[in-house]
Amino acid sequence: MAGESDFIEWLRRQQAPAPDFVLVPPGDDLAVLKWPAGELLLVGADQVLDGVHFDSTVHTPRQIGRKAMNRNLSDCAAMACLPAAAVATVAAPRGAGVEYLKELYLGLREAGDVFGCIVVGGDTGSWDGKLAISVTILGRSAGVEPITRAGAAPGDLICVTGPLGGSLAGRHMDFRPRVPEAIELAKRCRPTAMIDLSDGLSRDLGHVCRESKVGAVVRAADVPIHPDVARLPRDARSPLEHALHDGEDYELLFTVPAAAVKDLPIPAHVIGAIQSEPGLGLEHPGGRREALEAKGWEHGL
Amino acid sequence: MAGESDFIEWLRRQQAPAPDFVLVPPGDDLAVLKWPAGELLLVGADQVLDGVHFDSTVHTPRQIGRKAMNRNLSDCAAMACLPAAAVATVAAPRGAGVEYLKELYLGLREAGDVFGCIVVGGDTGSWDGKLAISVTILGRSAGVEPITRAGAAPGDLICVTGPLGGSLAGRHMDFRPRVPEAIELAKRCRPTAMIDLSDGLSRDLGHVCRESKVGAVVRAADVPIHPDVARLPRDARSPLEHALHDGEDYELLFTVPAAAVKDLPIPAHVIGAIQSEPGLGLEHPGGRREALEAKGWEHGL
Repeated sequence: MAGESDFIEWLRRQQAPAPDFVLVPPGDDLAVLKWPAGELLLVGADQVLDGVHFDSTVHTPRQIGRKAMNRNLSDCAAMACLPAAAVATVAAPRGAGVEYLKELYLGLREAGDVFGCIVVGGDTGSWDGKLAISVTILGRSAGVEPITRAGAAPGDLICVTGPLGGSLAGRHMDFRPRVPEAIELAKRCRPTAMIDLSDGLSRDLGHVCRESKVGAVVRAADVPIHPDVARLPRDARSPLEHALHDGEDYELLFTVPAAAVKDLPIPAHVIGAIQSEPGLGLEHPGGRREALEAKGWEHGL
Repeated sequence: MAGESDFIEWLRRQQAPAPDFVLVPPGDDLAVLKWPAGELLLVGADQVLDGVHFDSTVHTPRQIGRKAMNRNLSDCAAMACLPAAAVATVAAPRGAGVEYLKELYLGLREAGDVFGCIVVGGDTGSWDGKLAISVTILGRSAGVEPITRAGAAPGDLICVTGPLGGSLAGRHMDFRPRVPEAIELAKRCRPTAMIDLSDGLSRDLGHVCRESKVGAVVRAADVPIHPDVARLPRDARSPLEHALHDGEDYELLFTVPAAAVKDLPIPAHVIGAIQSEPGLGLEHPGGRREALEAKGWEHGL
């Protein structure tokens, strides 16, 4: 049986020449990076788990690797930073085989390559368990002050970068993180707050409101609904409910002062407004309002 | 059932005031750090998996959290850097419960606190799978040039910081990473190469030799054997074999020029020498030599 050290040898052969800021490449106990002077370091981690974020009986390892990286790249988009480097750990079912792990790695790398983000380390192990991949991302501020969830102010308008809902029809495995859009937006029209839509609009907007200590009203008629919603198996929920709660859209939600909305440098849909009263509301055509409950993605622990 | 957001609220209340270099603490998409100017950034990740690195039916979540962090802190020791910050992902069996996850987190934090290393982010999810914890560590060079595996030269002596073998009797769950020893050593008597002993002496010395393009001879009589070896269930292997191959010792193995060995600033055992001929040898009392095979820890994939 091929072992860890063969796989590590293969990994090392895959690596492109390390960029200037990598002083000691993967292969030692830790990689050594020379962080660009004056640039902030943004860091976070996200995992994808078999049966939760993907289905190993359906999705290819290449797709799974791409998704694991893309979720983290989407976090960089949410803060408007440039993805620079990533480390990944893989817990693989015993006997998955080296070819499977190579495909996973190639998926990770393929997704990172789109934004010049390199894999600088990690750990691969096998166990009597299911496939779990954890990725940590290091982002560079690159001259752009990071945008947090905490700056939305009453009167700001709420925007999203694309249609929502129905991601589980397939899009959740194959999306393009909105990194260039985020940076363009941050440079040209500084949003007051931003987040990527992974848990669902209702829940993620709630995160922004909680951090910003404000409330929000979403206009039902203005929420863009993704055509994928029609591809889902029919259920009791309306297309609007799918758009509000499904999650895994990986579009950006951001807030801007009302005056800025006519000059947005990227395509976006205005879906509502921030208000000082706490809580989330949903306004239907004709003016009827109801509470917008956070029904999006939440792990029960 | 308590959910992810309650747990996240609890996590935020646990955090001590963030040190100066944390500009945006955990709770946003990414944490924002101001990396100290002129300091190198060392980064790597390591995971602990139920049934491989711990046994969730035997070990407490506090112990498991500590081990997950300590393995990464030990990687910092191996490079002689200061642990600064960590991010962690936890994949928990559905229904593990918030109390269990709190204990895990407190274990992670407890281990990090020993060295002033703070947890700045992560992700917790539940699944129909076993417990897996992945930790990424960020280390600071703090004025000490990182020590890699690649500088050992023929004639250098091979040292280890403590007795080896028998870690599975219990020590593997509760060890103290050799961070201060590593930094003291690096400042006062620069080792030519260093690694932490996680895979077992025979395998880890092999890593050093491969990276340094040298070979080595270990003197059997000089390998310090840990008293824990006697606590293991009796098997066909000799105490020496346990010390050579068991792994999870988390002592440092380092190489120094022969002249430096009399002035080492920390307690260490000289166990052999580097030579130009490739391969690892084991020299028995009386001079008989045999090949030292790498029998330590290797994942079959």
